[in-house]
Amino acid sequence: MMYRRRLEKADGRALLLYARAPLTGPMEAPSSGPASAARAHLRWHPLRGEWVAYAGDRQTRTFMPGPERDPLAPSSDPARPSEVPAGPWEVAVFENRFPTLAADAPAPPPSLVDTRAARGACEVVVFTQEATGSLGALPLARLELLVDVWADRTRELGARDDVAHVLPFENRGVEVGVTLPHPHGQIYAYPFVPPVAARELAAQRAHYEAHGRGLLDSLLAAELADGRRVLHVADEAVAVAPVCARFPYEVWVAPRRPVARVPDLRESERRDFARVLKTVLLKLDALWDRPMPYVLALHQAPTDGAPHPEAHLRAEICPFARMPDRLKYLAGSELAAGVFIVDVTPEQAAAELGAVRVELEAAA
Amino acid sequence: MMYRRRLEKADGRALLLYARAPLTGPMEAPSSGPASAARAHLRWHPLRGEWVAYAGDRQTRTFMPGPERDPLAPSSDPARPSEVPAGPWEVAVFENRFPTLAADAPAPPPSLVDTRAARGACEVVVFTQEATGSLGALPLARLELLVDVWADRTRELGARDDVAHVLPFENRGVEVGVTLPHPHGQIYAYPFVPPVAARELAAQRAHYEAHGRGLLDSLLAAELADGRRVLHVADEAVAVAPVCARFPYEVWVAPRRPVARVPDLRESERRDFARVLKTVLLKLDALWDRPMPYVLALHQAPTDGAPHPEAHLRAEICPFARMPDRLKYLAGSELAAGVFIVDVTPEQAAAELGAVRVELEAAA
Repeated sequence: MMYRRRLEKADGRALLLYARAPLTGPMEAPSSGPASAARAHLRWHPLRGEWVAYAGDRQTRTFMPGPERDPLAPSSDPARPSEVPAGPWEVAVFENRFPTLAADAPAPPPSLVDTRAARGACEVVVFTQEATGSLGALPLARLELLVDVWADRTRELGARDDVAHVLPFENRGVEVGVTLPHPHGQIYAYPFVPPVAARELAAQRAHYEAHGRGLLDSLLAAELADGRRVLHVADEAVAVAPVCARFPYEVWVAPRRPVARVPDLRESERRDFARVLKTVLLKLDALWDRPMPYVLALHQAPTDGAPHPEAHLRAEICPFARMPDRLKYLAGSELAAGVFIVDVTPEQAAAELGAVRVELEAAA
Repeated sequence: MMYRRRLEKADGRALLLYARAPLTGPMEAPSSGPASAARAHLRWHPLRGEWVAYAGDRQTRTFMPGPERDPLAPSSDPARPSEVPAGPWEVAVFENRFPTLAADAPAPPPSLVDTRAARGACEVVVFTQEATGSLGALPLARLELLVDVWADRTRELGARDDVAHVLPFENRGVEVGVTLPHPHGQIYAYPFVPPVAARELAAQRAHYEAHGRGLLDSLLAAELADGRRVLHVADEAVAVAPVCARFPYEVWVAPRRPVARVPDLRESERRDFARVLKTVLLKLDALWDRPMPYVLALHQAPTDGAPHPEAHLRAEICPFARMPDRLKYLAGSELAAGVFIVDVTPEQAAAELGAVRVELEAAA
């Protein structure tokens, strides 16, 4: 059972508190500072065929504050409020103080290229009240709750008229540009279907029409039959180092049943999804006994109300290190050509990650 | 006039030396070590619809050697040969010792997804005999020669049956993952048209069919008429902070006449292209009085023999810093959604870069 309490900050931003037990009693909705006025806008890149967001006022956003200034830790000193209150919450979500996408984004002036307001939402997801730690090391029950939170946000944001697609993600590590060490993720709710989601949906639709079966469903069945890249199998979820990984040690976690979006997961699927996700996050951190920098993103269907039987939810974890002391950089080939060069084959990655034992597996 | 001399290294790799004066007399073709056997291969990513290259043996490639081990400096000690000889060359090109793409790439074993041999070429382009410095700070005549070298490589590699597209680029700065400080670039010759080039060509074709004029040609005309983002104008080349920039301080340099590929540039266009390119590179380094990390790439038409009147060559320079001490990171939105968030508007970037005066402008 998930309990949710909705509060509103003084500047009008929403604060959502989540827990497994009822959230009763008085609770504040503090703010570490005023929200910046929504000023971002979108322009069309005619050569690439994609929207680009311009958010000049984010330049002043919070950058690696000291622990006494952690805006994601519960407020204790009224003179220095954070973004979340003291209280028995387990996961907190609030609207970003420096949003790229916002419900009240103004219409931009005309330009040489098409423009539109940067409508949508940018939310921060606080994984824990603790200022340090990692997503993978949180209790399994917390990851289960987080899956419920991702489902709640996908449903609520996706129902908005100005939202076409919801992307929950975690940027992890200073190597990925993280500016706050407190374990947290983000949710971007876009007013259009982003290019990557559009391409993936088109590929899935073509496969479904040709084979009567989902593309990821077919691929996962082939991965399970092959076995070399399978990292963990639960009754209702699976983790693989996918045969077509674009990053070293890239891992996909997916429900075995084709499910279009997080809220479509059944209770038992959510449990297995959380368990498999925790298992691979622990493996990635244990691989070299150091926190693995990565971008974790949930790839799901657009929130257009259609059932999308061709779509199949997955968490894609893209590590940014290729060796313990060497980062993977995206440069000429990746950025200017769109051709990723991977120094670690998925087979090698799976062998190395498979050899790492984590406690959760023994308990399974 | 460009002079070129072709030599062959002991392991069969080509070495091409370029200069403005004849390259006569005895010259070696040294090698800092044996070339790794071509072992990379390509796999199809069915969800993204793109080829991914796997190059496991590049993990051991040269990483930040000391100056006494610079493989791009002219060989002086026969006991420690570098990759280039002593002699009067100005620019040197050789096949990468650790290539991702190679003419003799083997056919890969079958897989769950389509695979193909990683045919093509990976070349290193040494900009100068000096171990330090920068592309922008080289004499204008050297940049003119480099444009001729890019033209030569595009023509020769593009004529090969196993090459569909040629991408000359420079990764600049440790922030972009550069492993050798010696000023140099690279050339990737792909056996297919890469996704970015394919998308740009399709957009240009659609615009040309609708308007009888090139997309970039139309956009540059609009930029020149607007003026706010124009950085430098020569008779036959122009630099702008494009209205749809995806990176902070992104700059495009293009010939004013629509030209499909580097070798199609006339002599006078090459001179102006080199001059404008040098001007903006100096501006980027002078902006904060420190070397700007960037990826510079030449976007040109595929080498399919067709004239491509819709295509319009440009150099795209994508800086990786948004403030003097803050990098621009690609993370959740850019990588998982394909939506770039830019903290510096092109108008602001153009105003800042326009205020930076560099000597070349005064001399023009």
